Amino acid sequence: MQETGSISIHTENIFPIIKKFLYSDHEIFLRELVSNAVDATQKLKSLAQLGEFKGDLGELKVRVTVDKEARKITISDRGLGMTGEEIKKYINQIAFSGATEFVEKYKDKDAAAKDQIIGQFGLGFYSAFMVAEQVEIWSQSYREGTTAAHWTCDGSTEFTLEDAEKAERGTDVVLHVAADSDEFLEEARLRTILTKYCKFLPIEIEFEGQVINQTQPIWTKQPAELTDEDYTKFYQELYPFSEPPLFWIHLNVDYPFNLTGILYFPKVKDEMQFQRNKIQLYSRQVFITDEVKDVVPEFLMLLHGVIDSPDIPLNVSRSFLQADSSVKKINTYITKKVADKLNELFKKDRAGYEEKWSDIGLFVKYGMLSDEKFYDKAKDFVLLQNAAGKYFTLTEYQEHVQVNQKDKNDQTVILYSTDPEAQHSFVVAATDRGYDVLKLDAVLDPHFIGQLEQKLEKTTFKRVDADTVGKLIEKDETTESVLSDDDKTRLQELFTKSINNEHMHVQVDALSPQDAPVVITLPEFMRRMKDMQRVGGGGGMAMFGSMPDSYTVSVNANHPVAQRVLNAEDEAGQKLARQAFDLALLAQNMLKGEALTAFVKRSADLLAAE
Amino acid sequence: MQETGSISIHTENIFPIIKKFLYSDHEIFLRELVSNAVDATQKLKSLAQLGEFKGDLGELKVRVTVDKEARKITISDRGLGMTGEEIKKYINQIAFSGATEFVEKYKDKDAAAKDQIIGQFGLGFYSAFMVAEQVEIWSQSYREGTTAAHWTCDGSTEFTLEDAEKAERGTDVVLHVAADSDEFLEEARLRTILTKYCKFLPIEIEFEGQVINQTQPIWTKQPAELTDEDYTKFYQELYPFSEPPLFWIHLNVDYPFNLTGILYFPKVKDEMQFQRNKIQLYSRQVFITDEVKDVVPEFLMLLHGVIDSPDIPLNVSRSFLQADSSVKKINTYITKKVADKLNELFKKDRAGYEEKWSDIGLFVKYGMLSDEKFYDKAKDFVLLQNAAGKYFTLTEYQEHVQVNQKDKNDQTVILYSTDPEAQHSFVVAATDRGYDVLKLDAVLDPHFIGQLEQKLEKTTFKRVDADTVGKLIEKDETTESVLSDDDKTRLQELFTKSINNEHMHVQVDALSPQDAPVVITLPEFMRRMKDMQRVGGGGGMAMFGSMPDSYTVSVNANHPVAQRVLNAEDEAGQKLARQAFDLALLAQNMLKGEALTAFVKRSADLLAAE
Repeated sequence: MQETGSISIHTENIFPIIKKFLYSDHEIFLRELVSNAVDATQKLKSLAQLGEFKGDLGELKVRVTVDKEARKITISDRGLGMTGEEIKKYINQIAFSGATEFVEKYKDKDAAAKDQIIGQFGLGFYSAFMVAEQVEIWSQSYREGTTAAHWTCDGSTEFTLEDAEKAERGTDVVLHVAADSDEFLEEARLRTILTKYCKFLPIEIEFEGQVINQTQPIWTKQPAELTDEDYTKFYQELYPFSEPPLFWIHLNVDYPFNLTGILYFPKVKDEMQFQRNKIQLYSRQVFITDEVKDVVPEFLMLLHGVIDSPDIPLNVSRSFLQADSSVKKINTYITKKVADKLNELFKKDRAGYEEKWSDIGLFVKYGMLSDEKFYDKAKDFVLLQNAAGKYFTLTEYQEHVQVNQKDKNDQTVILYSTDPEAQHSFVVAATDRGYDVLKLDAVLDPHFIGQLEQKLEKTTFKRVDADTVGKLIEKDETTESVLSDDDKTRLQELFTKSINNEHMHVQVDALSPQDAPVVITLPEFMRRMKDMQRVGGGGGMAMFGSMPDSYTVSVNANHPVAQRVLNAEDEAGQKLARQAFDLALLAQNMLKGEALTAFVKRSADLLAAE
Repeated sequence: MQETGSISIHTENIFPIIKKFLYSDHEIFLRELVSNAVDATQKLKSLAQLGEFKGDLGELKVRVTVDKEARKITISDRGLGMTGEEIKKYINQIAFSGATEFVEKYKDKDAAAKDQIIGQFGLGFYSAFMVAEQVEIWSQSYREGTTAAHWTCDGSTEFTLEDAEKAERGTDVVLHVAADSDEFLEEARLRTILTKYCKFLPIEIEFEGQVINQTQPIWTKQPAELTDEDYTKFYQELYPFSEPPLFWIHLNVDYPFNLTGILYFPKVKDEMQFQRNKIQLYSRQVFITDEVKDVVPEFLMLLHGVIDSPDIPLNVSRSFLQADSSVKKINTYITKKVADKLNELFKKDRAGYEEKWSDIGLFVKYGMLSDEKFYDKAKDFVLLQNAAGKYFTLTEYQEHVQVNQKDKNDQTVILYSTDPEAQHSFVVAATDRGYDVLKLDAVLDPHFIGQLEQKLEKTTFKRVDADTVGKLIEKDETTESVLSDDDKTRLQELFTKSINNEHMHVQVDALSPQDAPVVITLPEFMRRMKDMQRVGGGGGMAMFGSMPDSYTVSVNANHPVAQRVLNAEDEAGQKLARQAFDLALLAQNMLKGEALTAFVKRSADLLAAE
C-alpha cells in the first residue's frame, strides 16, 4: 500500500484556535478592522490614480462608531466595497490573501500603489470574533451595476449571504459585542485603542464625530520640508510633558530595505531615568509595538521616537528576528546614522556638544561597550570630564596627562574619582600635586575603564584614593622620613594598638608635612574585584565579595602629629592617635554610627571647655 | 439571493501561519513531540490497567537521539502506536483532537486515565515543521494483526503513507532538520531543552543513553511520605548553589480546581536579591513557563518553587488570564495557604520565626500592602524590630510605647529610624529620654508606615530626626531657657549670619544641657513628600521634588557653647558658631566635600598645635 494525499484542516477545530492564538491581545481587533478599511480606501485611491476608477471619490473618511445600548461597534469605509461574490472569495476563505492578489495584478503599474497595501486582508478580519458574538458586513462595490451584499456570521463556520440595499459605496463591518467583551463598548476604551494603533494612519479616521489621526506624520515627509519646531512638536505629541529632546535623526532609506522614522536623543536628569521601550514600531503607519528589542541594537533602545518599516517581520519568534537579514541590516544602518550624527554635532559645535554630554555620555559609552564598530567611530567623540568640569577627547586627555602622569615604567596612570564630593580630600591632594583627576561616576564607568585599559596602550586607571598621593604614580624620587627606623616601628605599633582593627593595615610613610597626619586608602585591584562582585559579577568574583574591605592606613611620619604621638604619655598618645585616625576615617566617609556620635560629643565638649 | 455556506480554510495558506504563529519559540517542538510520546505511552498503560491491552508492556522509555551527520533527530516511544488509518485520522487532519476522542471513549471508566492525557494531540505535532524540512513517522500499533506504517511529509500539505516493517510497538518520529535550524543538531542544545521542559515527565526519557528526568517529582507525592530533606534536596535541584530555603508549603488541591506544587520561602540577604519569576509553572509535569505573572498574586512572585495545574489556561491573553475564574480561585487559595503557614510558624516557634524575619519581612509587608485579605491575617504575625534589635507584634508594640509615647493630644507617636547607624546620635537622644525607636529601613517601609497610620487608631509615625528630642512627642511640660529673650535673639542672628544658608532655618531652643549644642532636623511631612517624589511618586508630588531640602537648625540655649558664642568677640563667636554647626552637620551626615576637607584640615592643625 502506498498513497499520497493532502493534509486537511478541520475548519470547525482550527477556527477557535486561530481566534485564540492569532493575537494574545484582544484589543488588536480594532487595529485589524480599521487597517482593512484604510486598505480598501487606499486601493480605491490607487485605482483612481491609475484611471481604472473614474467616478467621484467623495469624502474618504473611515468612521468608527459605538452604540452601547445596542452593543454594536461599526467600522465604515468608502473604499472599494465588495460584491457578494467577492465577500465569499475574500472573507469566507480564510487566509486567501486579497492583498497578494491585488499586488500581483498591478505589480508592473505603480510601485507606490503596492506600498500602500496593509497587512494580510482576510486573516485579520477574523480577529473580530475575539470580541464579537456576531459579525455583519454590509458592502457596496465601486463597480457600476453591482448589488450590495449583506453577510452575517455568528463565529461558527456557518454564514449567510444575501442581497441588500446600501446607498453608499464601501463597507460597513458591524460587531455585535459578546458578553465577555463589555469593555470594548466603552467609548473611552475604544478611543484609547484607536489612539494607540491608528494615530498615524494615512486615511482620516473619525471616531464619534472627531478625527483621531494625523494622516501625514512627519516621518513620512522629507527632512528638507521640516523645521526644528516640527520635530520638537512631534516629540511632544509622542511623549507629552517630556523635556524637549537634545537632537534627532531622521531615518529614510529605500534600499536594500524600506525604513523611515525619527530617533530622538532624550534629555535625562540621571541614569535611572533612562527608559527603554520608548521607540514605537510602525508598519506603514500602523502602530505595531513599543517592544523593539531585537529590532534595534540594545544600546539604541535608550533613544525615543518612531521607526516605520514594512520589512521587519512581525509576530515571529525572537530567535528568528535576530537572524533575519533585514533586521541585521537595519541594525547596522541605524548604528551608523547615530554615530554619524554624533560626530557631526561634535565637529560642528564642540561647546554645544559638551553641554549635552551629561545626557548623551551614558548612551555613547553603552554603545562603545556593546558594539565594536560603534567604538571605532565613537572613540573620536567620546568625552572625558575631569573633577574641575573640563572636557577632553581621549587623545586630548592622553596629551594632557602625558608629562606629569607617567610612572617610572613609562606607564600613563590616569586618576579618577567615582564621587569627587565624597573623595574631596583625595582629589585636592592629587590636584595640588599637579595631577589631573577624571570624574567617572556613571554606572557604566567601571566597564568603560576596563575597555579603555584594553584599548589604550600603556595606560592604567587608578581611583584617587587607591594610595597616598605620593605613591599613586610611582616615580623614582622618594620623600625622606624625619623619623628614625626605631621611631617608625614604635609609631606603627602605637597606631595599630590604638586602632585595633585587623582590616586596617597600618604603615608609616614619609608623606609631605602638608599632607594629612593619617590617610586611609583602598588598593585599586581589590576594590575593583569587590565592586564587580557587588554589582553582581558573580561567578569567580564571589570570593572577593565575602572578604571584608581591606584598608591601608598610612601614618605620615613627617606630620607634627606623628612627633606628638611619639612624645606623649602612653594613654595620651593613644588618644591622639585615635583622634588622628578618626579624622582620616572622616575624610573617607567611614566614621559612622556610635563612633561618629562619640567623636561629635567629644568635639562639642572641647568646644564648650576651650 | 440568499444563501448559507461554510467558511473554508485554504490549507496551503493557513499551514505556514500555524507554523509561524503557534509558538514564538522554536525549541518548543521538542516539548511537544516528547509530550506526545509520553502521552501515547501513558495511554497504553491506562489500557493495560483497564484490561484492554493484555500484551507485555515491556520497557516503556521514550528515547531521543540525534545524528548530527545525517541531520536527524528521532523521538521513539513504545506506546500505543498507530496504524496507517490512524495516522491519517490523527496526523493528517490537523486539530482533530486525539486526546478528546480518547477521553470521550473512556470517560466513565477511570478518572486517573483521563488525568494522564497531555495536551492537544495533533496540533503540537506540527511544531516539528518549525525546525524540520521533512518529517517521517514510523509506527506499529499495539493492536494485534496490524501492519506498521510509514508516513512522510516535507512541510507542504502533501504527504505519502505506505506500509512498513517495524519490529517494536510504538512510534518513531524522525525530523530531518532544516538548514536554518542547525542549532538543534547540537547535543548540548537538545539536552538543555529537554532538561528545561521534560525534567519531570512521568515516563522515563532517555537522551543519548542517559535518563534525563525524574518521573515522580516530589510535588506529585503526599506530604506524609516526604521528609524535610526531600524538600530541601528538591530545592537544590531547582536552584543549584542557592542557600537552603527557610520553609515551604506543599500545595495539593483537587477541587474546585486541580493544583499541586511546592512553594519555598527563599533565604535572601537583602531586598535587591529578591528575584521574581522563580516559580516554575507545569501542566501535568510538563514545564510550561517561569513567567507566572497573573497566575500567582504579585507579592507571591517573590517565592520560589513549582506549581502544577492543568486548570490554568495556557497561551491565552493576559487580560483573559486575569479574568479566569480558576486563576482567581488559585490566587485566593495560595494566598490563604501562605498566610496559614506563616501564622503556624509564628505560633509554634516564635524565636525561630524572629530569626527568619529579615528574610520574610519584606514579603509579609508586600502582601499586606497589596492584598487586603492578607493584611487581615498578617496583622497578627507581622513583626516590628526596634533599633536595639528586639521584635514586637503590632499589639505588643502599641502596649510597649503607650505609657511614654502619648503626646498631649492622646496620640501615640511611634518613632522610627530609616538608618540607625546614620541617625545614631538621634536614636541615642531618643532612647536616653526613654523612648523606643523602630528600625524601618526597608524599601517598602514608607508605604508600610502609611498603611499602619491608616489602620491603627490615634497613631502617627515620626522619623527620629524629625525634631529635637524634646519636641518629637509634644507634652505639656517645657524646659526653661537660661538665656534672656535678648540673648536668644542675638544668638539666633549670630548663627544665621555664620551659617549663611537660606535653607537652614535657625531657631534657639531650650534643650537639655546634655543635648548637643546644635541639632539639625528635617520636618516629617516635608521629608515624606520629598521621599515619595524621589522614588517616583510623581504627579502631585513633583512640586516637592523641585524644592530644596529645608532644615531646622536648633541652637541649644542651655548648652555652654551658646554662652561662649555670646561672650566671644564677633569674629571668634562666628568661628565658634560655625564649628558647632559643622558638628551638627556631621551628626546628620551632611558635612561633605570641600567643607569636610576644611573641617578635617582645621582639626588636624589643632591636633598638631595643642
